Amino acid sequence: MNKINSLRGMPDFYSDDLISWTPVENKLEKIFKTFSIGEIRTPILEYTDLFKRSVGDTSDIVNKEIYSFNDRNDQSLSLRPEGTAGVIRSVIEKKLDQQQSKFWYMGPMFRYERPQKGRYRQFHQAGIEFLGYEEGKSDFELIALVCSIINGLDIKNAKLKINHLGDKDSKKEFSSSLVNYLQPFKDQMNEKDIERLNKNPLRILDSKDHKMQEILKDGPSLSNFISESANDLLLSIKKTFGDQCKIEIDNKLVRGLDYYTGLVFEACSSDLGAQDAFIGGGRYDSLAKTLGGKDLPAIGLAIGLERLISISSVSRLNEKKLVFISSTSNIAPLAFKIANQLRNANSNISLDMDLTDSSLKAKLRRANKTNASHAFIFGDEEMTNKTVTVKSLRDDAEQVSMSITECIDFYKKI
Amino acid sequence: MNKINSLRGMPDFYSDDLISWTPVENKLEKIFKTFSIGEIRTPILEYTDLFKRSVGDTSDIVNKEIYSFNDRNDQSLSLRPEGTAGVIRSVIEKKLDQQQSKFWYMGPMFRYERPQKGRYRQFHQAGIEFLGYEEGKSDFELIALVCSIINGLDIKNAKLKINHLGDKDSKKEFSSSLVNYLQPFKDQMNEKDIERLNKNPLRILDSKDHKMQEILKDGPSLSNFISESANDLLLSIKKTFGDQCKIEIDNKLVRGLDYYTGLVFEACSSDLGAQDAFIGGGRYDSLAKTLGGKDLPAIGLAIGLERLISISSVSRLNEKKLVFISSTSNIAPLAFKIANQLRNANSNISLDMDLTDSSLKAKLRRANKTNASHAFIFGDEEMTNKTVTVKSLRDDAEQVSMSITECIDFYKKI
Repeated sequence: MNKINSLRGMPDFYSDDLISWTPVENKLEKIFKTFSIGEIRTPILEYTDLFKRSVGDTSDIVNKEIYSFNDRNDQSLSLRPEGTAGVIRSVIEKKLDQQQSKFWYMGPMFRYERPQKGRYRQFHQAGIEFLGYEEGKSDFELIALVCSIINGLDIKNAKLKINHLGDKDSKKEFSSSLVNYLQPFKDQMNEKDIERLNKNPLRILDSKDHKMQEILKDGPSLSNFISESANDLLLSIKKTFGDQCKIEIDNKLVRGLDYYTGLVFEACSSDLGAQDAFIGGGRYDSLAKTLGGKDLPAIGLAIGLERLISISSVSRLNEKKLVFISSTSNIAPLAFKIANQLRNANSNISLDMDLTDSSLKAKLRRANKTNASHAFIFGDEEMTNKTVTVKSLRDDAEQVSMSITECIDFYKKI
Repeated sequence: MNKINSLRGMPDFYSDDLISWTPVENKLEKIFKTFSIGEIRTPILEYTDLFKRSVGDTSDIVNKEIYSFNDRNDQSLSLRPEGTAGVIRSVIEKKLDQQQSKFWYMGPMFRYERPQKGRYRQFHQAGIEFLGYEEGKSDFELIALVCSIINGLDIKNAKLKINHLGDKDSKKEFSSSLVNYLQPFKDQMNEKDIERLNKNPLRILDSKDHKMQEILKDGPSLSNFISESANDLLLSIKKTFGDQCKIEIDNKLVRGLDYYTGLVFEACSSDLGAQDAFIGGGRYDSLAKTLGGKDLPAIGLAIGLERLISISSVSRLNEKKLVFISSTSNIAPLAFKIANQLRNANSNISLDMDLTDSSLKAKLRRANKTNASHAFIFGDEEMTNKTVTVKSLRDDAEQVSMSITECIDFYKKI
């Protein structure tokens, strides 16, 4: 039979990989909890329409990258490419769109992209949504959370870029001023930026094209279109949290999704290379209405877990591990009973029962290769005497015979 | 704009729902760890072929229930309907199919079924796979694990049913004896059982049809076809673990998936009603070869989390919660700094910052409705004096003004 491979861009994770994942996931959960944010879990699958209306049907995500298919009733479903749309859909459906709530989520997302370093087709995000809160306190709180993540996860060379896109009107005004300014330069622009000029001109500010960046230098600046209070907000955020992490006001920061208004931000680390953002977020006051809900001011963020994990220094505590070797001539069911008694006595220890039929010598050799501190040996002699031999795997000399009760006491105190 | 709904059979989970989820998930993880089993995470999406070859293309799961679609290269992909196939695919791909390993996984699975009580289209399973282990010790160890789950999660009215399907040959022999016996009764059988007779006769033993059960009473019994050692294994398991949970040898137990051989088992609870199984598993020695790998003896189980959670009595510890009320006339960025200092000082407390602009009175009223023990108030006066007012929400009289340092000390000791 021929083998079946995994899908491109969808890696498997084994214990050795997860050594760096679980401590970061646990630490994030812990931080979310200190901010009194409740967990929400929405399904992996949604109607495609949800993402067309939220992320925007001019975006790359919906046009080129979404995993969509028709179900048995010929309705178009999609694997979620991001987490916010599902949360807002759920809140509207449950009629929670007229109250305040704070949510966090964590889980897999899907985009059909060219796999490359730090970019996968199944990737993982954690996210926060503060719903029902006007601009002001919630913006400060979310930035406070970003600082806690950067410091709590010990991220080096981090920088938090912030910007303000104004409200819907000023965003539109700036956008048309930008389009007017750029018209004469159209023949110098690359194809992608020309497409952006027609569909989503703000994203041109994001252009990686060097020539484009030169052209933009003399163009209109977003800071001239937004209100004084918006500029004040940026300055006050920078002043308040500047001692907790490096903050930079960046008037070119626009973020990839159509739905942002007001504050937007991105946390980057130079340790990540070219794709240096590991947290992105902003305010999206009109999204709920776009999805058929009430007016629901909101601000949120998403964390790219693959990237965050690659630069975080948090690591798992050393785990206590012991090996149980049953080496009787026939299978000794009693061995499994004793092992379970031990596990019940101390749930902080990982007790590895050797399930092979190899010799005692081979089993001890294998146990020595693990990071286990002791081997518990249960052979024919031990079965007759109802004892267990406890052998230290670190100190070669030590080997003690214990009654089962003694053995459980020993296990409790390790 | 019209609303967009969630997909049928794919519920959202909020904090209140998750109160019963996370303690069960955490407890399971803890039990897996005491058995020294490593976590594995495989992707949600796989080539459809994987499930056709593993679960079997005569099964309902693959024929009627699988979520399949073609990707941009016209290859058929599917959302995983169960967890074992992906694990075996991964182990073969990474050339780990000639060694021993123990894995656990937890996550969403997908089947297009009629949603009903305890049955969803996105549902959740945890599972265990012991790979590379012959019949014997690994069977005992896995049953020990099942007992630990039943006891550790405090499942009432639980019963563990065990059976032995023999090896490939005896399974085949019994199967044809059963078909021969049933031929004369064909006109008394319902459509579903006739289909099973042609495709997968063993599953007829599972028939819920009362008349069928009567017919089967005089038919061939599986216990006459399996070896003495197989019968001994069942008896020894029952004897070894009978004092830890109720065990019953059930010669009619066959399990739904084609790939089982040897020991099969199911943990049920009468608290679940008609669909009473919450753990199912068994040996599947030939699965790896079917998927293009080496001969890899294996045994595993899957846990239906929705069902397990509905009958488990494990619950979350009471969480400590405090409310921070910033009630200055303008936004006080200092409030967010103080809140972050508190959170850093004690990460076991959930500090809920009130982000609304409502009055102090309204905020206190809201705080009183939560399960918070104290409110920290930071108003204009406190801002001038650099103090925080700490008000007990349980004892109406108590209200103390503290310096910020005092407040942090107080927070550490709560």
